[in-house]
Amino acid sequence: MGKGGATKDAILDRAVRLASQVGLSGLSIGRLAEDLHMSKSGLFAHFEAKETLQVEVLERAAQLFVEAVVRPALAQPRGEPRLRALFEHWLCWTKTARLPGGCLFVAAAAELDDRRGPVRDRLVSLQREWLELIANVARTGIPLGHFRDDLDAQQCAHDLYSVMLGYHHAKRLLRDPRAEDRARAGFESLLAAARRRRRKSA
Amino acid sequence: MGKGGATKDAILDRAVRLASQVGLSGLSIGRLAEDLHMSKSGLFAHFEAKETLQVEVLERAAQLFVEAVVRPALAQPRGEPRLRALFEHWLCWTKTARLPGGCLFVAAAAELDDRRGPVRDRLVSLQREWLELIANVARTGIPLGHFRDDLDAQQCAHDLYSVMLGYHHAKRLLRDPRAEDRARAGFESLLAAARRRRRKSA
Repeated sequence: MGKGGATKDAILDRAVRLASQVGLSGLSIGRLAEDLHMSKSGLFAHFEAKETLQVEVLERAAQLFVEAVVRPALAQPRGEPRLRALFEHWLCWTKTARLPGGCLFVAAAAELDDRRGPVRDRLVSLQREWLELIANVARTGIPLGHFRDDLDAQQCAHDLYSVMLGYHHAKRLLRDPRAEDRARAGFESLLAAARRRRRKSA
Repeated sequence: MGKGGATKDAILDRAVRLASQVGLSGLSIGRLAEDLHMSKSGLFAHFEAKETLQVEVLERAAQLFVEAVVRPALAQPRGEPRLRALFEHWLCWTKTARLPGGCLFVAAAAELDDRRGPVRDRLVSLQREWLELIANVARTGIPLGHFRDDLDAQQCAHDLYSVMLGYHHAKRLLRDPRAEDRARAGFESLLAAARRRRRKSA
């Protein structure tokens, strides 16, 4: 990668941090130029429009997420240890990736759910890929006997996502000092349910 | 309540609907005036500043939530039936209250988590009151034998909140047709865990 590429990566890293604080919608080329002490025209050379910048910020954030969460989790043994590693790395990923304003994806989800366009579309596809990856990791625990045969792995992925959304809410909005304990307890319940035979429910 | 009061209530109802779409931050006096075909000065007579308007919108949304969710749930027998009613009414509250843009509180939580000031403070206190109410409803199930003696009711409230955040995410962002089924399955797991003796967890 040449000098141009490195510069763009550095810009994107800064943009990801800024977006974690001001939201994707708050991330304009003007705002980023100010933050980087660059000229707007210098930034326009890299990103043609606000939407291009926003999509590239999502892509870069997804790379950071893979490095901070997915890669170390996939290095763990399949099944429960891998699902646990996924959860643990996810819990601290904004620290690992040094995002000052918390999870960019959670903030973007609330911002973009009512909008249309390429930024929302890219966010949705990234979130679906992530849910599918969690479901696949959960499935690896079935043949190993960690989880029950009839585990609904997609439900498990959805539930784990819910645990993380609850964690984000408790930590960032409520500043609940027990947020992490609550998330861990939620995750343990989820594992217990994944191990157990299915119950008839009302 | 005089005519002035009724007018203000009508304005606030419109403002709540608008805020569910554009977010609390997007709700300026100018934007609301445009939406209502009123003059800005007419609105300034009711709300001195954007923040006053935002806090009053939160208060009005909380009233709508009580009418749509809390009151009908409290009319149900204590314990599990009441907790279930709470969940069911919560699931459809934006429909009951006719909010076109989904749950105002979820959107506001993501918008305001990094800010300071009276709007955030009011949101946090409303959310804490709501979590405390859920915990109290869960507690009513302990002496009735619906739930185990050592149920952590605050954890239960946190977990139910997480289920609802997951529902909101699946429905509004991912447009998952199974969002409601997923939320119900999450809620049934939560009830199953509340009934069961506590397990030793890792």
